[in-house]
Amino acid sequence: MKPVPSYREHQPKPSCIVLGGGGFIGTNLCRRLVSAGHRVRAFGRRCQFPDELRGADWYQGDFTDATALAAALDTFDVVFHLVHSTTPQSANLDMVGDVQGNVVSSLALFDLCGKLKVRRLVFVSSGGTVYGLPNAIPTPEIAPTDPIGAYGVGKLSIEKYLAVYQRLHGLDYRILRVTNPYGPFQVPIKNQGLIAAIISKALRGETNEIWGDGSVIRDYIFIDDVVDALVAAASDQSEGRIFNIGSGVGRSVREVIAAIELALGKKLDITWKQGRAADVPASVVAIERARDLMGWQPRTPLDGGLAQAIQWWQSRETAR
Amino acid sequence: MKPVPSYREHQPKPSCIVLGGGGFIGTNLCRRLVSAGHRVRAFGRRCQFPDELRGADWYQGDFTDATALAAALDTFDVVFHLVHSTTPQSANLDMVGDVQGNVVSSLALFDLCGKLKVRRLVFVSSGGTVYGLPNAIPTPEIAPTDPIGAYGVGKLSIEKYLAVYQRLHGLDYRILRVTNPYGPFQVPIKNQGLIAAIISKALRGETNEIWGDGSVIRDYIFIDDVVDALVAAASDQSEGRIFNIGSGVGRSVREVIAAIELALGKKLDITWKQGRAADVPASVVAIERARDLMGWQPRTPLDGGLAQAIQWWQSRETAR
Repeated sequence: MKPVPSYREHQPKPSCIVLGGGGFIGTNLCRRLVSAGHRVRAFGRRCQFPDELRGADWYQGDFTDATALAAALDTFDVVFHLVHSTTPQSANLDMVGDVQGNVVSSLALFDLCGKLKVRRLVFVSSGGTVYGLPNAIPTPEIAPTDPIGAYGVGKLSIEKYLAVYQRLHGLDYRILRVTNPYGPFQVPIKNQGLIAAIISKALRGETNEIWGDGSVIRDYIFIDDVVDALVAAASDQSEGRIFNIGSGVGRSVREVIAAIELALGKKLDITWKQGRAADVPASVVAIERARDLMGWQPRTPLDGGLAQAIQWWQSRETAR
Repeated sequence: MKPVPSYREHQPKPSCIVLGGGGFIGTNLCRRLVSAGHRVRAFGRRCQFPDELRGADWYQGDFTDATALAAALDTFDVVFHLVHSTTPQSANLDMVGDVQGNVVSSLALFDLCGKLKVRRLVFVSSGGTVYGLPNAIPTPEIAPTDPIGAYGVGKLSIEKYLAVYQRLHGLDYRILRVTNPYGPFQVPIKNQGLIAAIISKALRGETNEIWGDGSVIRDYIFIDDVVDALVAAASDQSEGRIFNIGSGVGRSVREVIAAIELALGKKLDITWKQGRAADVPASVVAIERARDLMGWQPRTPLDGGLAQAIQWWQSRETAR
């Protein structure tokens, strides 16, 4: 006798649209979703690795263009919102532009999600900026949220509006406060992506210019672990809404450099530059909530993640 | 021998501009500042009581018009920011408009304050909405801030941006999270001002239509006490930045009605209407921080405040 398929097996896989699907996190997420058999659309201004998005539908559009967004959103079940038009540095230079490009555009997205009856929205917030100067390290989700820059305020505002949209319009959502992701498909742009910058310069034999004195502590998390969390958040049925996603372990810039030197088997050429005002000295998040409620935890130790990032850069350099 | 005047006596009184100076709180604040000898400008779209602003300079302008704001701001030492273009009800109906009219315009104001070297900005935030559904009553300033409506999110965003402006550009500020003020010069508009609505209808012998079942608890504070806090915040030198300003005592709508009935010596004619989704069931703030750091405390008991509000309405009715 054939076994009766469970209810779950009968359910078609939810279709997914990834806003910011052409970027670092987006490329990794789309690849995972495609290989898991979902219908996937990647939406964004630029597609950094078009060949790597095979199986996903690339939809070129600007997140601030509500018409383009409405056309792209179509009938997707799950929306991954990975777009942020600024960096922690640039947001402070044009706070109004930051609000318009991110907060206001996110409100337009939430309106659309309500109209199109999207089943779940997953928003990537910022574990490194929403808490500001943390009272406790590792910092739990319930800690005070007092950002020291406009980037964190924008992310926090979007989080708060999501809660209002759920209350008023039933929009189901999860928020992931992701720390510092690294790994394949990360290229150093706009002063972001420390690990990518160090590896790529080291492989080319170039000098690395690094801000600060190397004491700044961050929570680096391998991209596959972030993708695990995004996938878990898309179907999570717990009572949680906001989850820190990091390794839970703090590493100084000097420790990261030492680990990369160990992996490459050579000493790196570093020039230290004066620190940036937008930086908090230490940022490490507590990840118990994601473990307890979503069953998620990071699987990749720093050395293993660095090895994969280095391998990716090496294959890129070879392909040139 | 003539006594040497103290440093303090030599200092000219700081000049003050009150944004939203034509409204309820603004009119009361301007009158106090004028009588204390400050140079005062009231800025706003509408001046509700032009005769009562004698001694202040009325400057007609829209807060969202950065050019008008720049011209009005001129060389004032202290800026009181009392403008909010929406109500807790209306903000939910147009969140983008709420962000544009309040958050974005406040950012333009903060930019101006930096350029014009304003000495102190005092922002009136909302004790009744920034906390959302409070875990603790009375609610202290350190409580979680999870607004249930867009109005509270907008106020909270402005608070957070103020902290960023201070850090980046040295803008000195104080935030007052004011609860439900009442008293002279409050007229019921846009469903706000419960006490004003009840008194004015009662004096005219009209029926009061009141939302909910009368169980909703609010923290009503007499306007003179709010003005005391605004004046204290303009010169406060404590390490505090955010202060709850309320009576610290919760009163149900039914208690307020009973107190007004007692003051008027007659039974009121009330029609109860179905409750509003934007309402939290109870909102009462803890006021110890303002007492301990600014030396402020409310001086007016509810019956005394109601008597003054009633007297003001009676003199208005007589003058018609």
